[in-house]
Amino acid sequence: MPASPSTPEPTADANDATLPSVNALSERLVARLLEQAGRLRVALTRTDAGTVIADAGVAARGGIEAGLLIARICMGGLGRVALRANLDAAPLWPTMLEVSTSAPVLACLGSQYAGWSLSATKEQTGGKKFFSLGSGPARALAVKEPLFAELGYRDRHTRGALVLEVDRLPPQVVIDKVLHDCGLAPDQLTLIVTPTQSVAGTVQVVARVVEVALHKVHVLGVPLDEVREASGCAPLPPPAPDGIQAMGRTNDAILYGGRVHLTVQHDEVARRLADELPSATSRDYGRPFAEIFTSFNFDFYQIDPALFAPAEVWVSSLESGATYHGGQLDGALLHHQWGGPAGTR
Amino acid sequence: MPASPSTPEPTADANDATLPSVNALSERLVARLLEQAGRLRVALTRTDAGTVIADAGVAARGGIEAGLLIARICMGGLGRVALRANLDAAPLWPTMLEVSTSAPVLACLGSQYAGWSLSATKEQTGGKKFFSLGSGPARALAVKEPLFAELGYRDRHTRGALVLEVDRLPPQVVIDKVLHDCGLAPDQLTLIVTPTQSVAGTVQVVARVVEVALHKVHVLGVPLDEVREASGCAPLPPPAPDGIQAMGRTNDAILYGGRVHLTVQHDEVARRLADELPSATSRDYGRPFAEIFTSFNFDFYQIDPALFAPAEVWVSSLESGATYHGGQLDGALLHHQWGGPAGTR
Amino acid sequence: MPASPSTPEPTADANDATLPSVNALSERLVARLLEQAGRLRVALTRTDAGTVIADAGVAARGGIEAGLLIARICMGGLGRVALRANLDAAPLWPTMLEVSTSAPVLACLGSQYAGWSLSATKEQTGGKKFFSLGSGPARALAVKEPLFAELGYRDRHTRGALVLEVDRLPPQVVIDKVLHDCGLAPDQLTLIVTPTQSVAGTVQVVARVVEVALHKVHVLGVPLDEVREASGCAPLPPPAPDGIQAMGRTNDAILYGGRVHLTVQHDEVARRLADELPSATSRDYGRPFAEIFTSFNFDFYQIDPALFAPAEVWVSSLESGATYHGGQLDGALLHHQWGGPAGTR
Repeated sequence: MPASPSTPEPTADANDATLPSVNALSERLVARLLEQAGRLRVALTRTDAGTVIADAGVAARGGIEAGLLIARICMGGLGRVALRANLDAAPLWPTMLEVSTSAPVLACLGSQYAGWSLSATKEQTGGKKFFSLGSGPARALAVKEPLFAELGYRDRHTRGALVLEVDRLPPQVVIDKVLHDCGLAPDQLTLIVTPTQSVAGTVQVVARVVEVALHKVHVLGVPLDEVREASGCAPLPPPAPDGIQAMGRTNDAILYGGRVHLTVQHDEVARRLADELPSATSRDYGRPFAEIFTSFNFDFYQIDPALFAPAEVWVSSLESGATYHGGQLDGALLHHQWGGPAGTR
Repeated sequence: MPASPSTPEPTADANDATLPSVNALSERLVARLLEQAGRLRVALTRTDAGTVIADAGVAARGGIEAGLLIARICMGGLGRVALRANLDAAPLWPTMLEVSTSAPVLACLGSQYAGWSLSATKEQTGGKKFFSLGSGPARALAVKEPLFAELGYRDRHTRGALVLEVDRLPPQVVIDKVLHDCGLAPDQLTLIVTPTQSVAGTVQVVARVVEVALHKVHVLGVPLDEVREASGCAPLPPPAPDGIQAMGRTNDAILYGGRVHLTVQHDEVARRLADELPSATSRDYGRPFAEIFTSFNFDFYQIDPALFAPAEVWVSSLESGATYHGGQLDGALLHHQWGGPAGTR
Repeated sequence: MPASPSTPEPTADANDATLPSVNALSERLVARLLEQAGRLRVALTRTDAGTVIADAGVAARGGIEAGLLIARICMGGLGRVALRANLDAAPLWPTMLEVSTSAPVLACLGSQYAGWSLSATKEQTGGKKFFSLGSGPARALAVKEPLFAELGYRDRHTRGALVLEVDRLPPQVVIDKVLHDCGLAPDQLTLIVTPTQSVAGTVQVVARVVEVALHKVHVLGVPLDEVREASGCAPLPPPAPDGIQAMGRTNDAILYGGRVHLTVQHDEVARRLADELPSATSRDYGRPFAEIFTSFNFDFYQIDPALFAPAEVWVSSLESGATYHGGQLDGALLHHQWGGPAGTR
């Protein structure tokens, strides 16, 4: 029954006939980021043609509040992202991110997923090579990824925003490519830069806990229109100063500390996802992500795709009303990784 | 000292001399529901005379976000309702609703309580009989229930909204009755329809966890102006496909999974409510609601009224500063009911 | 390395070059308090010259929602303060306050800290002596405290708001002093009065859980610009009817029930704060605050300053990426204090 990822089918549905514009819905949030940039410690620069680049962690300091706003932009205005103090008497971790959306496919895969590869050669930049994955609503204007055919979604809007997880500002050649592919006037595009090693970057990646679950649903070949509601949470660590460790942390927050609750249509799908979705189903599960990545000589594509999933999932079925549960959090691994130098707290 | 429900007395109080308008306060939320209807998967229809009917789960799909907004409308704009990921390391349930209000009597009994019986015969509808309990701010325009005399409250506003927990759209004869009793022009009324078996319907009923506590305060004959502050939480299950089971679930979420914290004036009242308010004080406590309802041959009025209460209450007294605690959650019952077909997860 | 409090140094930093105006940022919140005063049960009076006095608990009843809004005003619009139902299966306390800010030094020390002594003699008032500590954004207009030199911060704005934790309205002589020191026109100042024994007063003091941590950072001589992010939570009790007990409760909520997560720059600082910041480092730790205060014959300055701190701290370092943990909550002490007359619940 599940459609294979290799045979994309539009999954738009009569009930979703008028799919909202993720760029229109996030426009208000982008405006807030620019207006409050000073307070949020986000540095704004503007190209000669008027494209705004919002630096949330390269030269600027950024912070958690900037990261939360960027995460909401990244979900196309269709998700809620909040910082939560863990009220537990003996918490796994004191500070958590909470994410929810009633439009999980569009918010997470149509907007938040970091699926648009943007690169430039040394010759093109006149300096260093540039590479970044683009995420956020402008992806849905460019629709350069096969995923959009499966989603049956293309946004049309005169403004757009794209988030780049990279440690320097994008070169003009990349900006021009984005403008061209999105069909935007230069002064109608906002590029938001969040390095992995920055606080805002850590927030916006950990806020992908629900998106990672949706992506795994897709990897498993489950039809995306099965997923009706999604929410979740994950612990928010500080960034690590080392690049590999920083990337490892945000992954560990989800793979070992993330919990997601999905509501799907069919009981069979709910049961299957509870079994197959958690990160523990992966052959590579059990070690910190940075260690896994290093052991594969930094070749991302050697890592088992099944690893990219929340630690714990709850999946409810509208068909049966039943809720299934799979996986579990691994607090010990997180404390060991995130504690003091000796791994203690 | 406590006024008996049979001897209604106005409980308005000098401090509350200028009671706010629940219809005015919720107007902004109703406007948002209509403006964002597409995104929230709410279908709008308009009668010839201009009354808007917002379908959040009959033919339309609705969802959690629609349900949260409807729950806030239902509280007359005087309460906060939020979806919360349970951050617990080993949660009772992954997704919870959180409700709070600093105007509990007005928000819960003056607006949210489903106290207005609306029915039409086959002859009147020209088809099937219609019955629904109306809840939400328009009740306070119509003041058809004796409860309003006790509250000493009547709203006057040119617009209103009413929530109907029913599985089809209301017939014109019922719309006309509502318009007449509320004294509203047809195009100034919004009727919001949320079936028990829909996601939005489940949300708006579970969001009654605090209202159920207030209602039990009333059943116990405690003067309503004792209650100054109220907040609470309850687990949010998916709807059950069967109607009786769906109704059972939303009740179980409150009766076995709901926790409420009330702040009252007198120490004696706080002490008494901690003892007498929890659902466990009822003779019918201990079995799933659907089973209880079935055992009484679906005769709602055979069920002990004392059962309708949160599982756990904390009651603080302003007079003494003391806080009393009664009842407890029954996670095992909920898991057994809400897990997979075999009751496992 | 740490600057001693006796050698104040400006700690403004290139990244914070354009420090926001705490009075401008909170202006919208003050407007909301005044507009919604009726619903929030806040009584407004206006002096002949036009200064607004918002009474949230002297003659008016106030409440939790009023207290939350006042707490956000007190943080200069730079913090989030929310009431949270504790979702724990067996919670320490059912209702918690959650506080967070990405601008902790400015929000907490530049605005929220109750550092401005305002007093008037019997002769000046023509009646009783008056004393109150002023907190909130208008402090940064007056900059009467040495702390502002250390912060390197002075706000300039044509409107301002000040919170007074006192049980009666301020006399004209105090109002005139505030107007003079802030350089405000009379009708551009809002004074908000929250008695310790009121619900709103309890909320706005418990909401100082993060501020208390920042103050202890300062007491320890740690440079304030070390602190980049802060969040926390504390249980919210009802006020106690007795003044000393009421003050004791709000202190106990923080000293024995407060948890704060700070993000600082240097690893050495993080490690030190985890060790030295928690309240348990104080010689006076272990007894209810009211009992300690009484044992020192109500002489506040006899109490060990190290006591004023959250019970539990987590401190993350951006330099190392490590997180250190110190102190712990004492639920037993709180339950004993806040339960029924016999200390049971």
